[in-house]
Amino acid sequence: MKPIETCTVGIVGLGLMGGAIARALGSIIGERGRIVAHDLDGDTLARAQAEGVIDEGFTAPKPMLDRCDLVFLCINPATVLRFMETWMAAFPPGTLITDIAGIKGNIVGAMERTLRDDLDFIPGHPMAGSEKSGFVHAKHCSFHEKNYILTPLKRNKPENLDFLKNVIYRMGFGRITETTPGEHDRKIAFTSQLCHVIAAALIDCEADREITRFGGGSFEDLTRIAMLNAPMWAELFLENREELVQRIEQFEGSLDALKGLITGGRGEELEERLRLVRERRAAMG
Amino acid sequence: MKPIETCTVGIVGLGLMGGAIARALGSIIGERGRIVAHDLDGDTLARAQAEGVIDEGFTAPKPMLDRCDLVFLCINPATVLRFMETWMAAFPPGTLITDIAGIKGNIVGAMERTLRDDLDFIPGHPMAGSEKSGFVHAKHCSFHEKNYILTPLKRNKPENLDFLKNVIYRMGFGRITETTPGEHDRKIAFTSQLCHVIAAALIDCEADREITRFGGGSFEDLTRIAMLNAPMWAELFLENREELVQRIEQFEGSLDALKGLITGGRGEELEERLRLVRERRAAMG
Repeated sequence: MKPIETCTVGIVGLGLMGGAIARALGSIIGERGRIVAHDLDGDTLARAQAEGVIDEGFTAPKPMLDRCDLVFLCINPATVLRFMETWMAAFPPGTLITDIAGIKGNIVGAMERTLRDDLDFIPGHPMAGSEKSGFVHAKHCSFHEKNYILTPLKRNKPENLDFLKNVIYRMGFGRITETTPGEHDRKIAFTSQLCHVIAAALIDCEADREITRFGGGSFEDLTRIAMLNAPMWAELFLENREELVQRIEQFEGSLDALKGLITGGRGEELEERLRLVRERRAAMG
Repeated sequence: MKPIETCTVGIVGLGLMGGAIARALGSIIGERGRIVAHDLDGDTLARAQAEGVIDEGFTAPKPMLDRCDLVFLCINPATVLRFMETWMAAFPPGTLITDIAGIKGNIVGAMERTLRDDLDFIPGHPMAGSEKSGFVHAKHCSFHEKNYILTPLKRNKPENLDFLKNVIYRMGFGRITETTPGEHDRKIAFTSQLCHVIAAALIDCEADREITRFGGGSFEDLTRIAMLNAPMWAELFLENREELVQRIEQFEGSLDALKGLITGGRGEELEERLRLVRERRAAMG
């Protein structure tokens, strides 16, 4: 791969994350490189070009893919596989492709089986985002010190992996973790999907719109992410259903145990359990 | 009541909240007024005095109460009632007393029955705090734009209520809600206690200390408050047990419904329910 400064980098899907990645690339790509984007919405492309975030926009994928060295697929998980199936032939030989989907098992499996021999695809998941969606909010989506997970294919070229990691760090991310897709989907079911299900359930069970008069920070913290992008999260929940349901049930077990101590008035045990929770959370850093 | 600038204000319990209130009063009390504090820990009193947060510290309550016009009881809920029982005779006639306990039913009930005729006691709950405790962290506890709940007694003098509200706004709080103790305890069971139980259960069900490598913000948001002060929260949970258990069960109902949609792969219904959640959360402001 040539130096990133001189690459043409293509973004497929100029939404919140695609937009944030394009913006972050802006300070990396030099005068001899280019940032291009494909999106179905021509207005978004025009806006991004007017703001100087991309050099050129394409409402059709092929003319953009034709000229890319590196491609970020910033579209919903199910769409990633459809896109790769449909446009596999359009990538120039040697193109490095990566995605940002929040579940990895299905994508890794499909790419191991179907990726063209002369392409490289490194599945990834930037752990950043916002409760707001769309290109218009991309400028508020910070990568600073955030986590980035990679679930490499067996066939990924080590030099491409190093190249992508370097780009990720230069975009501002603070830590890259390489893991298996299975491990990724298990952990993410907990840190991300379960948290979103909980936030949704909290709002689902309370109809009082004036309840925020009684908020002191915890309610606001726990329900910020209840402002969720419904189609995307429904898809993520269902795609990772087995892991997620298991995590919900583990959580239900702990909740039920705490409820039992409260109902039974078992103050000392309750206090001890809360103390262990505090210690464990502190150890998690 | 004389102007707040000339009052002697006493803080009972110079922990996180007592310390934050003493600090906030610093910009209100004038040269002819004083801020004094009672705490069992002489070192904390000495430190607060050295930092200029209080004018004088007392390890025994009586000599402090003797000179106060206004007293903030910044101690745990159960301790508030014990303190009032023990030291009722030590307050000078006309003293205005308020507390900051996170549950109000028991305190309001006891004060309606037992408060001396020549004292006034306005039960309150500042909706501020921190996952850190102790005077040393008080300077990071902001009141800016926060909620403050008052659950007045039938006998509270209107002029004292106005006086206290004025002090609360001048300390930086953004909104005061007057309500009944029953309503307070029901609402707080949801916005505060349920949220803390959920955060605790989330940590309780996951032993992996490296899990934060997979965090992208939601896990961190939902578990910040898992760093809880165990004795205080155990006490709050048990004191408000009936309301809290009912709230836990409402939440369990919603969680179970979402789990059912996920398990059953009912994507359209799931998406619709998440969309309603988003709308409702947005309407809560």
